[in-house]
Amino acid sequence: MAEAETPNRSPEIRKDKIHNRWVLFSPARSRRPSDFKAKSNPQPSNQTECPFCAGHEHECAPEIFRVPADSTNDWKIRVIQNLYPAVSRELDFQNPVSLVGDVAVSGFGFHDVVIESPVHSVNLSDLSPAQVGEVLLACKKRIAQLRSCDSIKYVQVFKNHGASAGASMSHSHSQMIALPIVPPTVSARLDSMMEYYKQTGKCSLCDIQPNELLIAESAHFISLVPFAATFAFEIWIIPRDHSSHFHEIDSEKAVDLGGLLKLMFLKMSLQLNNPPFNLLIHTSPFQDDPSYAPSTHWFLQIAPHLSGVGGFEIATGCYINPVFPEDAAKILRDVRIS
Amino acid sequence: MAEAETPNRSPEIRKDKIHNRWVLFSPARSRRPSDFKAKSNPQPSNQTECPFCAGHEHECAPEIFRVPADSTNDWKIRVIQNLYPAVSRELDFQNPVSLVGDVAVSGFGFHDVVIESPVHSVNLSDLSPAQVGEVLLACKKRIAQLRSCDSIKYVQVFKNHGASAGASMSHSHSQMIALPIVPPTVSARLDSMMEYYKQTGKCSLCDIQPNELLIAESAHFISLVPFAATFAFEIWIIPRDHSSHFHEIDSEKAVDLGGLLKLMFLKMSLQLNNPPFNLLIHTSPFQDDPSYAPSTHWFLQIAPHLSGVGGFEIATGCYINPVFPEDAAKILRDVRIS
Ligand SMILES: Nc1ncnc2c1ncn2[C@@H]1O[C@H](COP(=O)(O)OP(=O)(O)O[C@H]2O[C@H](CO)[C@@H](O)[C@H](O)[C@H]2O)[C@@H](O)[C@H]1O
Ligand SMILES: Nc1ncnc2c1ncn2[C@@H]1O[C@H](COP(=O)(O)OP(=O)(O)O[C@H]2O[C@H](CO)[C@@H](O)[C@H](O)[C@H]2O)[C@@H](O)[C@H]1O
Repeated sequence: MAEAETPNRSPEIRKDKIHNRWVLFSPARSRRPSDFKAKSNPQPSNQTECPFCAGHEHECAPEIFRVPADSTNDWKIRVIQNLYPAVSRELDFQNPVSLVGDVAVSGFGFHDVVIESPVHSVNLSDLSPAQVGEVLLACKKRIAQLRSCDSIKYVQVFKNHGASAGASMSHSHSQMIALPIVPPTVSARLDSMMEYYKQTGKCSLCDIQPNELLIAESAHFISLVPFAATFAFEIWIIPRDHSSHFHEIDSEKAVDLGGLLKLMFLKMSLQLNNPPFNLLIHTSPFQDDPSYAPSTHWFLQIAPHLSGVGGFEIATGCYINPVFPEDAAKILRDVRIS
Repeated sequence: MAEAETPNRSPEIRKDKIHNRWVLFSPARSRRPSDFKAKSNPQPSNQTECPFCAGHEHECAPEIFRVPADSTNDWKIRVIQNLYPAVSRELDFQNPVSLVGDVAVSGFGFHDVVIESPVHSVNLSDLSPAQVGEVLLACKKRIAQLRSCDSIKYVQVFKNHGASAGASMSHSHSQMIALPIVPPTVSARLDSMMEYYKQTGKCSLCDIQPNELLIAESAHFISLVPFAATFAFEIWIIPRDHSSHFHEIDSEKAVDLGGLLKLMFLKMSLQLNNPPFNLLIHTSPFQDDPSYAPSTHWFLQIAPHLSGVGGFEIATGCYINPVFPEDAAKILRDVRIS
């Protein structure tokens, strides 16, 4: 066999202008064989042990707040400290001095968990749009608290769903890490969006023309597959109105976003068989230079994990995506939710 | 339980000055539980089907060359085309025009596989230093061929070992992807090393003081755990003499490097129980601006995969490493290979 069956489409290299990085699109890659036995998708074990379930609150690190605030056993959402935090709220903040040599600062910061339901088996997609909206508003409320800490520069909200997307706990939850530095991918995104603004006088996300990349729309948001998606069937949800920070969202928009998010989860679950995924909120740093306001625009990213990554991606930061975004968008657009 | 057992060390945030990115160090993270059943490490299935084995050459995409060049059934190394390439050598090269809008170019490039042994069960660590050196020299030879193609800007050599490091084939091999663009992580590295050079007048890798981070040394190379390692037990091997490009290596240095590489594989395998890993060659673009020559210095990275990544790393580019580099270096230094 000298040649693989002709791929239906030639590979393409596209630039993600939001992050200023290249992505390789290659349908041929999806046909390669593997001589490793199929990876078993690890299933959650005994749920009766889960500290995130109602009734097990005492097994968790301290609570920050709950929703509703005055609830007892009938809470809907709990925001708690992470018991094994990546950064510590107990350390003193040290301003990183820009040294030429090795730079290290204390790992000051906040690492919290948002328990999205008291019930072990309930996923975000099982909640109503208003309930998903409440989870988003709980994140907003916690971010507002973290903002009052002067030394925190950026808060990353993220959700790991499924073991191969990194989850160690199967009970539906998200996490927030508040950092005293601006992380590398965030700096690259801010710079790249600023560059677009300088060249065009427009915000790169306000200026987006989804066309064949569109999946669905709501009153205040659009969902689409980005032109240079890093992952197969990746989805972005973008607010129609220009806004730099996720925490500017109001209750009405949160419910509207909740509905669109739920729709995306259902489509993804139906089409891709409940895949592992990450949900990421890409927002702007707190104390950012006002000159960034016109060019920065927050958005959500849903990154399904249909295949792993390897050495090439780790070395280069360049991902290989076997599915063209316009094909993924058409498939997701056409999934009917009854 | 209100608090985790006190970690032996507080978290720290360190800057990787070579890549200009932050890494979080948090020993507490290594103690978190998981309610997913242990991930089974997929084992390779029936080897009689492997196209990379001697005698199955006809099942592979076309050969580029073999070592020794005039060998027949008794080849030691084969460099072949990848049957499911991420980029295609059959497309025309298009120069990416710097447009403000969506930028896409044809996926021109070369994607090759280096079969490192004719025998299915032989790993790089089973080869002699001279044989590992021959694999390195085969990569050098292929890079020299790719260099003659004007439109290729960068070649990434990488190895995936083990299914969770991305490998789909278990027969020992590496891959090379030659690209018409400079990938994002490579640009960031070049810029960051240039910045160090501007500030100090020195190359950042020539200037490195390994001290407690040192693992081992050979005549021409040193191996160490980098100060801001992305992965637990990550290893870098750095040539002592300043050199921008991996393909400048000569036969003597290749054998010397082969020996040090073999030692690192053996230590890693013994200490970490044959973990999945990536081996990456970080070199410089071909047609780079001569002004980069004094600041760029090639090196090898070995990245073991002891835990997965999650949404935080994908969103921020900031990794969480539970093992402090000086602890990892001490452990690896102390592993005795009989
Ligand atoms: N008969 C044949 N002749 C020639 N070539 C053949 C062949 N049969 C298979 N191949 C090729 O051999 C290669 C084996 O490579 P690896 O096992 O290192 O990982 P792979 O490239 O599949 O993907 C990993 O690495 C890439 C790059 O990092 C990631 O994108 C991906 O997610 C990860 O699983 C494949 O690329 C495959 O196309
Ligand atoms: N009783 C308790 N009280 C409070 N908190 C508790 C607790 N028991 C467990 N936790 C915390 O709950 C969190 C659950 O988080 P996830 O399942 O989303 O993934 P995790 O953070 O483990 O790691 C994934 O995400 C991170 C960040 O992306 C990656 O570094 C990592 O590799 C990947 O597996 C953990 O961080 C854990 O520390």
